[in-house]
Amino acid sequence: MRYGIIGVGAIGGYYGSKLAYSGQEVHFLSHSDYAFVKEHGMQIDSCDGSFHLDDINVYQHAEEMPKCDVVVVGLKTTNNHLLPTLVPPLLHDHSVVVLIQNGIGVEADVQQMFPGVQLVAGLAFICSAKTKPGHVNHQCYGSINLGNYSCRNEAVFQQIIDDFTSAGVQAAEVPYEEARWKKAVWNMPFNGMTVALDTQTDLLLKNPATRWLIREQMLEVVGAARHLGVTGIDEEFVDSMIAITDAMTPYSPSMKLDYDFHRPMEIHYLYTRPIEIARAAGFRMPKLEMLEAELRFKQP
Amino acid sequence: MRYGIIGVGAIGGYYGSKLAYSGQEVHFLSHSDYAFVKEHGMQIDSCDGSFHLDDINVYQHAEEMPKCDVVVVGLKTTNNHLLPTLVPPLLHDHSVVVLIQNGIGVEADVQQMFPGVQLVAGLAFICSAKTKPGHVNHQCYGSINLGNYSCRNEAVFQQIIDDFTSAGVQAAEVPYEEARWKKAVWNMPFNGMTVALDTQTDLLLKNPATRWLIREQMLEVVGAARHLGVTGIDEEFVDSMIAITDAMTPYSPSMKLDYDFHRPMEIHYLYTRPIEIARAAGFRMPKLEMLEAELRFKQP
Repeated sequence: MRYGIIGVGAIGGYYGSKLAYSGQEVHFLSHSDYAFVKEHGMQIDSCDGSFHLDDINVYQHAEEMPKCDVVVVGLKTTNNHLLPTLVPPLLHDHSVVVLIQNGIGVEADVQQMFPGVQLVAGLAFICSAKTKPGHVNHQCYGSINLGNYSCRNEAVFQQIIDDFTSAGVQAAEVPYEEARWKKAVWNMPFNGMTVALDTQTDLLLKNPATRWLIREQMLEVVGAARHLGVTGIDEEFVDSMIAITDAMTPYSPSMKLDYDFHRPMEIHYLYTRPIEIARAAGFRMPKLEMLEAELRFKQP
Repeated sequence: MRYGIIGVGAIGGYYGSKLAYSGQEVHFLSHSDYAFVKEHGMQIDSCDGSFHLDDINVYQHAEEMPKCDVVVVGLKTTNNHLLPTLVPPLLHDHSVVVLIQNGIGVEADVQQMFPGVQLVAGLAFICSAKTKPGHVNHQCYGSINLGNYSCRNEAVFQQIIDDFTSAGVQAAEVPYEEARWKKAVWNMPFNGMTVALDTQTDLLLKNPATRWLIREQMLEVVGAARHLGVTGIDEEFVDSMIAITDAMTPYSPSMKLDYDFHRPMEIHYLYTRPIEIARAAGFRMPKLEMLEAELRFKQP
């Protein structure tokens, strides 16, 4: 299969390079890093073994790229307004688009942009960062869960999992809705609260007041998911998320990094859309509504 | 009537000096400013006309003070644990205690400290600050509303209003519960949110997200008051509070000043107690619960 990777940052750069390094045919689209990557290739510094790719199929414009069987979107959702320009040139009639992005409602909105296109949700569990053009620092983890949103070709879906696995990336299928909402249980409290209180995960859990607040916010997400008919997420899952975070080293989620580096925050898909979706179904998330408002105030 | 004033800061210093300047017999209790005030008196720089008091009846210990007919408490509620030491030496059998303090539940807790003592709530509408020992800067406003919590002597209650009025302080009786909750409609959102987002009233109202949030928080207070059977506070009152704040110059509420100057914040009576009282009656204030948790995190 031919892979097209949109974005060569922490996500697209990492997963695309892993696929290319394993021998897959991979074509990268890079806006700002094109010249550097064209000349120097990609360097992946990784806890699982570092490697370098010399010859990269890299393009500055989507129109120059070949049609791809699988298009992997590794952009932040704050750039999703660019997708109508970037994605269509890569599509043939049976292409599958994998969105490795954060939040709730992304697939529904992208499906509206490209009706009929087969979509897969990629939920990455990874700590990685682009440190400079053509350089990705992969600190730990790295697995990817795939949720089938609208992929009609089960064989291709399975092939994507197999290709990731062959590339040394732990990959598995998960139920789409459940996986997205499970991720939101952790993402919605911790991403925003670390920004709102300018802190890290450990201090939020050390203070009894914010520990209680984080749990209340997680329960709001569980309540929303249940109200939407999503099963498999309960109070026990909330407790496990808190226990896992207790065991982590002090951590700044992606939104905190975006805020600290004066980049736009993914407020829309991490807060606005899930709040809207739950509210439309008759369920309110008052504390997360407040967090959204605070983030909009702080968004530079 | 003989007045005892506990605290010579922005509140006790101002109202006590106004009473003394008008000819009332006033005795001040001052912990940290005792020596200065004893020697230099009190200076009130005021928008309504500045004045100086040379000879002040000031004491460092409550035990040295005479019994008073009216004891005015001008401390922050964060010091209310001191009241069992400071108040009883001033009381005779018919003393009335006026609490010029912020928040909800203060009178109930003080009544538990001093069962049978007659309590009056003083709701000050004033911008004043102690700028240095013995100096109060009174910038604007200055009226005081008195709510009868447990004063059995209607004549003394009326005399207090008359004495304030004679001293040039606009004073009136208000219904106790309604007045406390009305004040909370403004106090609960603005005091905490200016701290949470490190800002002033004007910017909170300029941003559409936080303007909405402030209104939602005000409606939580209105809902709590209604649930507790307090009448006379509705959505129209909320709109008027927002309109008044729109018309104000950018303002830092007292909690923001406390936070900026690393003083303890009045979280307990501005948030914890009203949230508890409403919750015990079956009403939740989720956004103000969240604000309380954020403030407890930020409290140094």
